[in-house]
Amino acid sequence: MTYKCIGLMSGTSLDGIDAALVNVSADGNTIHFLHGITRPFSDSLRKKLMGLAVNETVNKEELARMDALMGHLLSDVVEQLLKESGTETKDILLVASHGQTIGHYPDKENQYGHSIAFTLQIGDGDVMAARTGIPVVSDFRRRDMAVGGEGAPLIPLLDSLLFQNTEQNRCCLNIGGIANITVLPACGSTPMAFDTGPGNCLSDLAAARLIDHGLKFDPGGENAFCGKIHDEILDRAMADAYFTQLPPKSTSREYFDEKFLNFLLGLEKNVPFGDMVATVSCLTPRSIADALHRFVPVDNFPKEMIVSGGGVHNRFFMEKLKLLLPEMNVVSSGKYGIDPDFKEAMGFALMGYRTMKGLPSSIPEVTGARLPQILGKISLTTSAFHFFQRDKGDD
Amino acid sequence: MTYKCIGLMSGTSLDGIDAALVNVSADGNTIHFLHGITRPFSDSLRKKLMGLAVNETVNKEELARMDALMGHLLSDVVEQLLKESGTETKDILLVASHGQTIGHYPDKENQYGHSIAFTLQIGDGDVMAARTGIPVVSDFRRRDMAVGGEGAPLIPLLDSLLFQNTEQNRCCLNIGGIANITVLPACGSTPMAFDTGPGNCLSDLAAARLIDHGLKFDPGGENAFCGKIHDEILDRAMADAYFTQLPPKSTSREYFDEKFLNFLLGLEKNVPFGDMVATVSCLTPRSIADALHRFVPVDNFPKEMIVSGGGVHNRFFMEKLKLLLPEMNVVSSGKYGIDPDFKEAMGFALMGYRTMKGLPSSIPEVTGARLPQILGKISLTTSAFHFFQRDKGDD
Repeated sequence: MTYKCIGLMSGTSLDGIDAALVNVSADGNTIHFLHGITRPFSDSLRKKLMGLAVNETVNKEELARMDALMGHLLSDVVEQLLKESGTETKDILLVASHGQTIGHYPDKENQYGHSIAFTLQIGDGDVMAARTGIPVVSDFRRRDMAVGGEGAPLIPLLDSLLFQNTEQNRCCLNIGGIANITVLPACGSTPMAFDTGPGNCLSDLAAARLIDHGLKFDPGGENAFCGKIHDEILDRAMADAYFTQLPPKSTSREYFDEKFLNFLLGLEKNVPFGDMVATVSCLTPRSIADALHRFVPVDNFPKEMIVSGGGVHNRFFMEKLKLLLPEMNVVSSGKYGIDPDFKEAMGFALMGYRTMKGLPSSIPEVTGARLPQILGKISLTTSAFHFFQRDKGDD
Repeated sequence: MTYKCIGLMSGTSLDGIDAALVNVSADGNTIHFLHGITRPFSDSLRKKLMGLAVNETVNKEELARMDALMGHLLSDVVEQLLKESGTETKDILLVASHGQTIGHYPDKENQYGHSIAFTLQIGDGDVMAARTGIPVVSDFRRRDMAVGGEGAPLIPLLDSLLFQNTEQNRCCLNIGGIANITVLPACGSTPMAFDTGPGNCLSDLAAARLIDHGLKFDPGGENAFCGKIHDEILDRAMADAYFTQLPPKSTSREYFDEKFLNFLLGLEKNVPFGDMVATVSCLTPRSIADALHRFVPVDNFPKEMIVSGGGVHNRFFMEKLKLLLPEMNVVSSGKYGIDPDFKEAMGFALMGYRTMKGLPSSIPEVTGARLPQILGKISLTTSAFHFFQRDKGDD
């Protein structure tokens, strides 16, 4: 018995919404990709979302408006996915939506006697349930933070179910705005997972700023290939405290931002622009390789690296990873039939299903939480009750 | 078969959190009050919440922090209620939480091709589910707004189930910061419900400002009783456009605010302060009586008015209502065994149960929505699944 579910992801790189239609097995442990679409944000929308994401002070009405609006835009993408894949609404068990991150504050504070950390994703699940007529699970990160976790990363569960293998130590690398790694020991022990540092975020900024051809990113890494890497700049970038901080740890594009780039640019005055794109781009594979060597015990050291996320299309990243990790087989997740552009959306579909089933999806060893949790909030429609009442836990 | 549920309400008057422990019948149509507590907000907390509620521009981190913090404060109240009533966590089916309203924007706008209206209540249900171990239903108003409704009022369902009677036309009046009325025709037709205008909000402001004894409100209406009502001021206040606007309609304390009070104060320069409290207080019963006479068809005109909310303790309001509505029996909801301080909290408990049962709680004729909806989002714990799997719809 399997169930058709839809997962929606829009990352902090603000390029658009990824939607994946998947089949999930009744026990919530197996997932198969069926179809995926990506809808890019318009420039005006990207600008608005960027404003909310980077500003400390926001117009309250605008924030509430964008929460509802994102619910509609996500619903539009669900409708398009159903149409393109020839699937009917009644055949979909649920939509699971990550939402757009507007703020993430994992550092615990004491407030009125309570230790709290918090996060803010928009894209109202109620709007989506009303629009699509499908039950919606949304707001996945808060429940983990409510029990002391970082609320991230959440994808290691999917990585473990898809790729953990008793024959071979493996790791999964996702290169979005930020890059994160999941180490999957062959011995079957709990995954280790953390953010390694910048993914596309710095090379995107460098490409947009330095190349000055209206680029939002360096396509395929081709500009990086043309430049010369300045090792003294790269070495000083690698001296940043984040890279030596012990996991569990997470970071954000607000850390590896314009200011960080300015710091790098300030190190040497006369670096040609092309060289800077190359040097900044090199920081991504370099910090990934460094983190693996620094933090992963020898017994668990991966033989294979399975790469997903937008960064997989950056050939410069991939080539450098292969050079810096010669002991490892660096491959796209496509090798295992997992489209690298939709892995995260698939992950939320899986977690949404597990929530409807009453199963936890967070891994306390990974997020730092006290206990695993059933993630997200459900906006119900009547079809959810057919599932609840049929599902007696005996798969 | 009945289920123990907890309802939580904290109104825009920002006096604190009301919590009601109730029994709900399996069919979701009958509710009995068991125990209630009110926990007042500290002055510092009230000030913070007031800042978020009245300011157009907010610190994004502070808003997210207060969302999580309110989740903890609401959980504290749940724990206190369980302790005081000698109830165990495992005996509670769910907690239903309205949350604290930080903004409400019911006027529809067109945004990127979508007609949207939105609202913002804080008090994260995920924090509460993690803290209490009980399934939580929260964020009740958005789903109705997602289908074109005002997201308010939602209490008419409870009013109808508790008080609608084939022998007698009745109405329910709730006096919180704003006053609202539900008209319950004996013929059994759908209730009519709307905000009549100010409840306690203006008399609270007048008491705080004019009496200057550190009062937050006029206790029992005693200051109002001592003053003289200035009819010319009252008449001009009643000329405000809201009072003649046709229902369905809703208003907020942001409309009947300091500016409105200043306008009244400006009408006559030499009114003694005590007279002003009396005159401003009189606007509440006067606008209620006027709305009933103006908008309720003769055939449905109530014989009995059942009053709840903090305003029921203001004897000045109650006496004036009796004088202005001599054809009506004006009583506290206590007459029917419903503690007037906990009716709204009871209402959310009932709606939370109906959501877990897959039943709608909004009344489209009242909110202006296109369709009735299953309200709120569920933050699950495993006990919810015992209910879902046991509940086969055959009560």
